[in-house]
Amino acid sequence: MAAEIPATMLQLRSLVTPDQTVQLWLDDVDVPEPGPTEVLIRVEAAPINPSDLGLLLAGADVTAATVSGTDDRPVVTAPLPDAAMRAMAARVGTSMPLGNEGAGTVVATGSAPAAQALLGKTVAAAGGAMYAHYRCVDVMFCLELPAGTSAVDGASSFVNPLTALGMVETMRRESHIGLVHTAAASNLGQMLNRLCISEHIPLVNVVRRPEQADLLRAAGAVHVCNSTAPTLMADLTAALKETSATLAFDAVGGGRLASQILTCMEAASAGADYSRYGSTVHKQVYIYGSLDRGPTELTRNFGMAWGIGGWLLTPFLQQIGLDAVARLRSRVAAELTTTFASTYTDQVSLAGALALDALTAYARQATGQKYLIRPGL
Amino acid sequence: MAAEIPATMLQLRSLVTPDQTVQLWLDDVDVPEPGPTEVLIRVEAAPINPSDLGLLLAGADVTAATVSGTDDRPVVTAPLPDAAMRAMAARVGTSMPLGNEGAGTVVATGSAPAAQALLGKTVAAAGGAMYAHYRCVDVMFCLELPAGTSAVDGASSFVNPLTALGMVETMRRESHIGLVHTAAASNLGQMLNRLCISEHIPLVNVVRRPEQADLLRAAGAVHVCNSTAPTLMADLTAALKETSATLAFDAVGGGRLASQILTCMEAASAGADYSRYGSTVHKQVYIYGSLDRGPTELTRNFGMAWGIGGWLLTPFLQQIGLDAVARLRSRVAAELTTTFASTYTDQVSLAGALALDALTAYARQATGQKYLIRPGL
Repeated sequence: MAAEIPATMLQLRSLVTPDQTVQLWLDDVDVPEPGPTEVLIRVEAAPINPSDLGLLLAGADVTAATVSGTDDRPVVTAPLPDAAMRAMAARVGTSMPLGNEGAGTVVATGSAPAAQALLGKTVAAAGGAMYAHYRCVDVMFCLELPAGTSAVDGASSFVNPLTALGMVETMRRESHIGLVHTAAASNLGQMLNRLCISEHIPLVNVVRRPEQADLLRAAGAVHVCNSTAPTLMADLTAALKETSATLAFDAVGGGRLASQILTCMEAASAGADYSRYGSTVHKQVYIYGSLDRGPTELTRNFGMAWGIGGWLLTPFLQQIGLDAVARLRSRVAAELTTTFASTYTDQVSLAGALALDALTAYARQATGQKYLIRPGL
Repeated sequence: MAAEIPATMLQLRSLVTPDQTVQLWLDDVDVPEPGPTEVLIRVEAAPINPSDLGLLLAGADVTAATVSGTDDRPVVTAPLPDAAMRAMAARVGTSMPLGNEGAGTVVATGSAPAAQALLGKTVAAAGGAMYAHYRCVDVMFCLELPAGTSAVDGASSFVNPLTALGMVETMRRESHIGLVHTAAASNLGQMLNRLCISEHIPLVNVVRRPEQADLLRAAGAVHVCNSTAPTLMADLTAALKETSATLAFDAVGGGRLASQILTCMEAASAGADYSRYGSTVHKQVYIYGSLDRGPTELTRNFGMAWGIGGWLLTPFLQQIGLDAVARLRSRVAAELTTTFASTYTDQVSLAGALALDALTAYARQATGQKYLIRPGL
């Protein structure tokens, strides 16, 4: 095998410079040697998730980005606003590899039997640095894909599927019986919709455009509310009354949407009698994304039994433990082309990911727009 | 005993009218007869707590209040803003008695031995409708005061003491090791300061004026930050670093204070290395009051391990159970004139509580301003 593997490879890196810019380029790095329990994956597909963008772009103003270098080896430079620069202080001068997840073929392994068993197999992996020709990871971060599954189909086997499953698991652990999801027409949202249908979990999908509502309804969604409609509050309250959903996962973060959801949950759960402290039903919103980076505004007209907080996949997985995670992973592998299928609007090479038109497109985080990096292209 | 007890009495009531006003007056009502397990208390002292004001004033604009009737039997009328009227829809046309807690002498009892044992005793009670000459309550809502304790000293035996103890109990149950408290110079704040000193719990007091800081420091507070000082963020971060306090109780609610506390907690807990999701230390703010009724604004520049929510005494006590509550109550009784002592800026009769100058004073909820109703005056 070793003869096929080059000594060096390209790896996409992001650097915050002291003069308040972020620079993105393809670095020449050595192809690593797998340790005893590691495998070397030839990366064939890696998605650009919203959760990759923070590290990649560092909050830069991509509309002011410029590109130098060659087509094969572009160097992107974009200015950082003051607030982004303050937040990135700890990153200045330390370039970082990127790509939370991806899939490819195992081309070399360490000596451990579990590693050797994967040689030649198509695997998905999580653990960062997947925007590269090769990535060396411990077998425990690998998911062997069912025979016949392509790397493209397996590229998004971790972040979105485990997030959707994590939302349902959180719902059950915190004793809710239904869910609300915002940015519900995203890849993740469509996945959650399929998952909730298959588990008979009432789900209220909140979208921003009529065509997104149509998309979800065509996929079987019963409750879809358009957050830009003048009837939002009435629509959402009606859906919450029908579903008794008291837990929301919000990808938007900024603005009033989280507050509006709590207000409607309160209206849906309040009894007819006046209670000065509102309903005793606990209403919870977890913010797991930040499509709107502005402040979250809470009007607090939803009684006292409410909570809002951050929700992040990795600590959640740590909290539920290895056995529970293994169970979730097996389910993902089994339903990768059905419940947990992803779709991509564009596929680009490593260099293509740094083209300005691609960069500005995926930085916009428009719902339904999703890029897949294919290092072999 | 019965000969001393009149057939009727005065009781303060609040009514939201269909024409968008709140009316407050002293109603003539029958003095109730105690059931088997009840006692009849001659109310001698009842505080006006912030938690009473929502029910009393219904969000009215007290600066536009007018008074009619006589000095002995005033009738206050105040207009309700549209938003308050919407929130009070379920209250329209149903007049409500007031007064969450108070103390007085047991002048009649039911047949149960536990009730009879309290005859002639000075007791504190919680359960509403204490702004009246008499109040009939079940013995389980009574706290017998230690011999020699006056009704004035025992008037605030429930709301503030149990809230202070509840904050400490919540801190322990949720695995934090220090507290932050806003509006820290209030009666409750001073109580919490004494409680934390006696329990060796690090407490960061946040106040709005230098003289409030002086008051708390004179009472032994180590960490006091002035939220109006230009150095707030640096002061608060330094205090949070010293205390490792990751749980705050916020009486203010509106504005940016809760967000600023989370930002400083994050700065105090963050390591030197860059982590895109921030510190893994969970940071929590509970909003238990609403001194600022405006929206809560969260900048979300404090990582993903954070939560904010409502905190209310009664559900908390239900959650910890009767045995735990009994333990807390005994402690309150034992330390009523020390740890849990309250001070009042003015004492008024039932009619005096409806005088416009008193009404506008206590409606302002200025820290350190606290009224005590003494129905016997």
